[in-house]
Amino acid sequence: MKSIRQSQLFTKTRREAPKDEVSKNAELLIRAGFVHKDMTGVYSYLPLGLKVLKKIEEIIRKNMDAVGGQEMFLATLQSKELWEKTNRWDDKVVDNWFKTELKNGNELGLGLSHEEPLTNLMREYIRSSKDLPKLAYQFQNKFRNELRAKSGLMRGREFLMKDLYSFSKDEEQHLVIYEQVKQAYTNIYKEVGLGDNTFLTFASGGIFAPFSHEFQTLTDAGEDLIYLSREKGIAINKEVLNDEVLKTFNIERDELEEVKGVEVGNIFSLGTRFSSALELVYANEEGKRIPVIMGCYGIGLGRLMGAIVEVLADEKGIKWPKNVSPFHVHLLNLDTKNELINEWANNFFDGLTQAGVEVLYDDRDVRPGEKFNDADLIGIPLQVIIGARSFETGSVEIKNRLTGDSEAMAIDKIVDYVMNVI
Amino acid sequence: MKSIRQSQLFTKTRREAPKDEVSKNAELLIRAGFVHKDMTGVYSYLPLGLKVLKKIEEIIRKNMDAVGGQEMFLATLQSKELWEKTNRWDDKVVDNWFKTELKNGNELGLGLSHEEPLTNLMREYIRSSKDLPKLAYQFQNKFRNELRAKSGLMRGREFLMKDLYSFSKDEEQHLVIYEQVKQAYTNIYKEVGLGDNTFLTFASGGIFAPFSHEFQTLTDAGEDLIYLSREKGIAINKEVLNDEVLKTFNIERDELEEVKGVEVGNIFSLGTRFSSALELVYANEEGKRIPVIMGCYGIGLGRLMGAIVEVLADEKGIKWPKNVSPFHVHLLNLDTKNELINEWANNFFDGLTQAGVEVLYDDRDVRPGEKFNDADLIGIPLQVIIGARSFETGSVEIKNRLTGDSEAMAIDKIVDYVMNVI
Repeated sequence: MKSIRQSQLFTKTRREAPKDEVSKNAELLIRAGFVHKDMTGVYSYLPLGLKVLKKIEEIIRKNMDAVGGQEMFLATLQSKELWEKTNRWDDKVVDNWFKTELKNGNELGLGLSHEEPLTNLMREYIRSSKDLPKLAYQFQNKFRNELRAKSGLMRGREFLMKDLYSFSKDEEQHLVIYEQVKQAYTNIYKEVGLGDNTFLTFASGGIFAPFSHEFQTLTDAGEDLIYLSREKGIAINKEVLNDEVLKTFNIERDELEEVKGVEVGNIFSLGTRFSSALELVYANEEGKRIPVIMGCYGIGLGRLMGAIVEVLADEKGIKWPKNVSPFHVHLLNLDTKNELINEWANNFFDGLTQAGVEVLYDDRDVRPGEKFNDADLIGIPLQVIIGARSFETGSVEIKNRLTGDSEAMAIDKIVDYVMNVI
Repeated sequence: MKSIRQSQLFTKTRREAPKDEVSKNAELLIRAGFVHKDMTGVYSYLPLGLKVLKKIEEIIRKNMDAVGGQEMFLATLQSKELWEKTNRWDDKVVDNWFKTELKNGNELGLGLSHEEPLTNLMREYIRSSKDLPKLAYQFQNKFRNELRAKSGLMRGREFLMKDLYSFSKDEEQHLVIYEQVKQAYTNIYKEVGLGDNTFLTFASGGIFAPFSHEFQTLTDAGEDLIYLSREKGIAINKEVLNDEVLKTFNIERDELEEVKGVEVGNIFSLGTRFSSALELVYANEEGKRIPVIMGCYGIGLGRLMGAIVEVLADEKGIKWPKNVSPFHVHLLNLDTKNELINEWANNFFDGLTQAGVEVLYDDRDVRPGEKFNDADLIGIPLQVIIGARSFETGSVEIKNRLTGDSEAMAIDKIVDYVMNVI
C-alpha cells in the first residue's frame, strides 16, 4: 500500500480518544487513526501508524547495517534457566517480568530484553579472537509489566524495540564500536526529524563503565529530569548528577538548565556481566579462555514515534517530519461531485503514485472543512488541495503542514514541485 | 545487509544439530546457521534465516496488497474480557493458551489468534454498508502452547504468521473476496517455489460453511492425511472424508490416493461467529443492525520455510527456490591465499553487489572441500566458483544447486549470466 484513497482506508479520524487516555501523543495518534488502544500501555498499529513505524525502522536498519550490524529475529519465549544464571529471573531483582508456563509447568519469561538468549546463542559461533568483533541486532517486541503506563506510546507494556548487541575481544575494540554506534544514533535522530531536540546525555553506567549514554529528546511529556548546558553541549541525567560528576565535566551547577526529556535511546557498556555468567568466552593466542566484552544499544520505535508527536504537534494535530510521514502527499479533492475535477484529481493521483510518490488521496464525499481538519490532524507535511476553483485559476493550493505556509501553484508545475520536495 | 563476506557472518555451519532435534527441516536449518533452537518449538531466526523469512513475507505482502489488504500490526497481549465474549477464554475450550498477568492480577492472553481484538477494533470504523468490504492483515507472532512440538519450524510454540481478515456486508460480497484470496494464495505458493507440491484441500468448515480450504504441501513430514486425485484435481482432508462428501465431489474412494501433507495455509468463512458475539454490526438502509460477515486467511511463514526445506532438500543440504533464497549467488573463492585471485574475486563481489545482486562471498581461509560442503548445505541456487585454475582457463565454474548441473563459463560472460538468471 504505497498510496491509498482515504475512502478505502479502514480507519477514520475520531473526535475523541478513549476517556482513560491521558497522554497527548496517544490521544492524537488514536484520534487520527494511527493506533488503537487495546488496554493501558498496549497499542495496536493501524495502517497509518504501521507506515510511520516502518519508515522509522528502515532509517534505523540503514544505520545499523552501516556499522556492520547483522539483523536477526530472536524468540519472545525465554527459558528461566538462562536468566537464573545471570541472577535476573527473580521478581525481586527484575520487577517487570511477564511470565507464563508450558503445559508441563515449566516457567517461561516473555522477552523483556534479549541479552541472555543472545549471549547463550553466540557460544555456538565465537571461538577465537578472529570471530570478533560481531554486531547483531533485531526489531522485536519487548514485554514489560509496568505498574503504571501513562505516557502513551512512550512507555508501553508491549513495544517494538531495536536492540543491537556488540561482542568484542577487548576494551579497545569495544570502545571503537561504541563510538561508531553513538554516531549512528546521532544520525538516526537527525533523519527522523528530532536532531535539534535530542541531546546525548550522561546517565548511570552500572558496574562496568562510569556512564552510559542516553539520547534524550526534550519534551514536557518526558519522565526524566536532565541538566543541560546548550552552550557547552553537555547533558547529565539527574540520576548521576553530583559534585564529583560536575567536577568531571568541569562545569558548575548553575550553568545547567533543568529540563524534562524522554529517553529515545540508550547505549551501554556491559563489560563481561553476561559473558562471564553464561560462559561466552574465546581462546586467546595462548589458549586462555577470555570472556567477551559486550555492549547493548536500544531504541524503542513506538517511543520515538510518540516523542515526534509530542515535540512537533500543534493544537490542530500531528506534524510529521517528511522522512517518517506515512505518505509524502495528502491530496485533498474538495469537489468530489464535480466530474471534471474528479477525473483530473484521479489522474493526478494515479500519475503521482506511478512516479513513486506515496499519496493519501482524500476522495471522500464530505465537507471541505472536515477535509482540512482531518488533514491537519493526520499531519502529512505536504497538502495539495484541488477544487472547482483550480480550473478557473489554473492553479492548486499547496500547503506546508509543518510551517503553515500556503501558496497557489500552476497546475503544470505541481508534479515537478512534489518530486523535488519529497 | 544485501551482500556479505562469509568470514564476517556471525553464524557458522555446524556438523550436528542439537541431539533433541528430530525434524529434518530444523536439523538442516540449524546446521546451516539459519535458525537457533531456543527450546522445543521455539526458534530464533539468524541472519540467513531472517533473510528467507523476509523474502517470503514480501511475496505474501505483495499478494495481500493486490487483493486490497491493508497492513496493520496488532498487539500480542490480549484482554480476557474479549475472549470471554466469544467463549474462547476457557482452557477447556481452547487448550493451547499461553496466559500471563498484570501486576494487579488481571489475566492476559498471548495472541494465539487475533479475531477478537480486531473484531472489537473494527467497531470504531464500520458503521454502514459503505464501509464494507474491508480487508486487514498483519505479520505478527502467534503463541500456542502445544503439548508436543516435534516438526521443527512446521509447528512452533511461537511463530510468525500472516493473518488476513475480511469484513463484508453480505454473503455475496464475502464470497467474491474469498475467491480472490484463494487465488492470491495459489500465486503465493507458486512464487515461493511450492506450486507443484501444494494442493487446495477441502477441510472442516465449522458451523458457517460446509468446508474451509487448506493448502496442503505434500511431504512425509506432514501431520495431516490427505486424500488426493491428481487427475481430477481434488484433495480432501481425512477429517472430513465420508460417503456424503465423496458424493458431493462425485468421486469414488479408490480414485483417491492417501498422502501426507503439511497445511501451509488455511482460508475460512467465519460467518457472524465473531461479529455477533462482539457486536460488530452496520446499519443497513432501513437502519437495521446487521452483523458483519467475516473471513480469516492464515499462512505461517516459518511453517512455509520448513515445508520448502522438507520438500526440496537432498542428502547434501537445503535447496532454496530462487525467490526465497537468502542470497542470489554464493561466490566461492578457492584460493584465498593467491593475491591475484583474491583481488579479482573481491572486485567481482563488489561489482555484483553494486549491480544489486545479493551475494554470499565465501572468502574464508578454509579447504575447498569445506566450502563445497557448506555451499551445498546452505543451498543458494547459484554457485560461482573461482580459483587459481580460473586464470589458466579464463573461466569460472557455475553450479546450479537445484539441478546439480555444473558448467565452465568465460569470465567476461558471468555478470550478464548472473543478471539474467536471478
